[in-house]
Amino acid sequence: MARVHNFNAGPAGLPLPALERAQRDLLDFDGTGMSIIEHSHRGKAYEAVHNEAIGLVKDLLSVPDDYHVLFLQGGASQVFATLPMNLLPAGKSADYLVTGGWAEKALEEAQRVGTARAAANTAVGKSFTRVPRPDEITLDPAAAYVHMTTNNTLFGTQWHGLPSVGGVPLIADMSSDFMWKPFDVSKFGMVYAGAQKNIGPSGVVVVVIRKDLVEAGRKDIPIIFRYATHAANNSLYNTAPTFSIYLIRNVLAYTKDIGGLAEIERRNRRKASLLYAAIDENPEFYRGPVEKESRSTMNVVFRLPSEDLEKRFVAEAAKKHMVGLAGHRLTGGIRASLYNAVPYESVETLVSFMKDFVKTA
Amino acid sequence: MARVHNFNAGPAGLPLPALERAQRDLLDFDGTGMSIIEHSHRGKAYEAVHNEAIGLVKDLLSVPDDYHVLFLQGGASQVFATLPMNLLPAGKSADYLVTGGWAEKALEEAQRVGTARAAANTAVGKSFTRVPRPDEITLDPAAAYVHMTTNNTLFGTQWHGLPSVGGVPLIADMSSDFMWKPFDVSKFGMVYAGAQKNIGPSGVVVVVIRKDLVEAGRKDIPIIFRYATHAANNSLYNTAPTFSIYLIRNVLAYTKDIGGLAEIERRNRRKASLLYAAIDENPEFYRGPVEKESRSTMNVVFRLPSEDLEKRFVAEAAKKHMVGLAGHRLTGGIRASLYNAVPYESVETLVSFMKDFVKTA
Repeated sequence: MARVHNFNAGPAGLPLPALERAQRDLLDFDGTGMSIIEHSHRGKAYEAVHNEAIGLVKDLLSVPDDYHVLFLQGGASQVFATLPMNLLPAGKSADYLVTGGWAEKALEEAQRVGTARAAANTAVGKSFTRVPRPDEITLDPAAAYVHMTTNNTLFGTQWHGLPSVGGVPLIADMSSDFMWKPFDVSKFGMVYAGAQKNIGPSGVVVVVIRKDLVEAGRKDIPIIFRYATHAANNSLYNTAPTFSIYLIRNVLAYTKDIGGLAEIERRNRRKASLLYAAIDENPEFYRGPVEKESRSTMNVVFRLPSEDLEKRFVAEAAKKHMVGLAGHRLTGGIRASLYNAVPYESVETLVSFMKDFVKTA
Repeated sequence: MARVHNFNAGPAGLPLPALERAQRDLLDFDGTGMSIIEHSHRGKAYEAVHNEAIGLVKDLLSVPDDYHVLFLQGGASQVFATLPMNLLPAGKSADYLVTGGWAEKALEEAQRVGTARAAANTAVGKSFTRVPRPDEITLDPAAAYVHMTTNNTLFGTQWHGLPSVGGVPLIADMSSDFMWKPFDVSKFGMVYAGAQKNIGPSGVVVVVIRKDLVEAGRKDIPIIFRYATHAANNSLYNTAPTFSIYLIRNVLAYTKDIGGLAEIERRNRRKASLLYAAIDENPEFYRGPVEKESRSTMNVVFRLPSEDLEKRFVAEAAKKHMVGLAGHRLTGGIRASLYNAVPYESVETLVSFMKDFVKTA
């Protein structure tokens, strides 16, 4: 069957050329007579792929020399635990900016490990419709770090500027908007992202972390959870998820080929503008609950006049080969995720469908 | 290029039909118009694959109803830490049977988490040439559990019977011999295995664990590390490594097709017999350091009269399309791993080469 229009929230669509390359390589990688999956993680063939993937992250983001790029397992949910295990010593507290369900989970897990508090919380009931204004953030100047979630997949909000944190390291969960545009790594102590939205498959999380934070990390935790262990071993302390990292390589090599993150940003802004315009053109029918200044370029959420209409919308869109449009099970409504690999044509197809749907509803 | 003879220690060769199926599915899974990699882990298409993979583990091993089958991330090295975090309460001690490098690492990580001791240790210097005799094991009857490593990848030893542990739960790291034959799951409190030797790619670890142990597990640890979390959520608490689990499905479905684990055992024994016979036929030239009763069916290690000859052996074998024959960087020598997917023909090719090599050396 022809490619569908994939609006999944993650795992999400990947660039077709990156998948085609994987398909070609799957039985015989680079003329080696075996799949990349079958190569030793300590062999030259895989090592080259591994280092190319790390190099592409560094290159595309202009990562400064005083940062490590790590590939870890366990997803962002595991970083929720390993972050305070590494960087939150006894006697210190960490500040969390709570802007959605994932930020809440990050805070809760940190509180199981040590002392952590919400330095801002924009919840209204169980919902979030915006990120905090500067005057709503009350930081602890002695905090071990400040944690933020740059994009909130469930509620469709996104930070469009960074909070002022003084000298406290800023740590960002970028799982759902990592590499959607270039950004200044040096503003952060650490950023992390599950690969399965913008840059690859599930099963690997990218961590970009300042070397001094790695070195200062706690040593009274299992060796496998120490960022220092993975930094010292180039993310090959134990067997890496080789195929997942290989696929990241394919996606990032393609990203570089088409012009890097500046081009990716241009495409993403164009897609988000088109879709938000379609929502705003019919404000009686399509209601965007998110305040405009906090709208996400990655996850566009909106409601229809009734849940019945929302169900019909999802079902009829599916007939036109658009998938992944149902909102999160906790929030309901419609959610269209516009990650890096979603083509402009898919958004055009959706917008055209939305215009027709208003007429026939 | 044609398929090489892959003797890698892991990640290792996979059955060609399982890879071919993955290649066919890679752009369009089951007529859905997208790759399995691009499917949501919460969608019906992936969920069916996920449950089929779990069901195949249960089916092929006749897993009793009072056990969970979990798919976790982080590899066996992470289980070295999460095992004592879950099952070693304060005030208790755990017993470890130390038979190789991985068993040592498991013990060391447990000692970072709580109290653990070596209840046996067959090291001679830095080497291991056998598993312990029953009278060499001194168990603590009050231990929280006894940990063993059923097959020792580095040193080529394997347990061919189980230690008597009384009522103490027996926990086995089966990373390098999981499913090499049928076994009685009910003898164990828990078994675990990185997938990348016998059943799939790297990036996922299979855990088979008695339900009462999960329930009794410690609650004073991060929620992501609790086996109870993953058991309660069918290994979908957070985003699973979907493609890795899909590939396990392919490998296990193929395993079932060819006759299940009884047939796999028959093939594995035939391969190991052929190779050990070739070693024993030329005892002056090929020296197997492992005591015969402890020889591994999975990793066959042997030495040649000199390191120069070993280097030449590996290099000339590579010219004949045999790869992965160099011993572990810590041990040197030759190691041929004969995991489930290695064809008999590959072992025949190796044995024929070995006979020629003796003559020309």
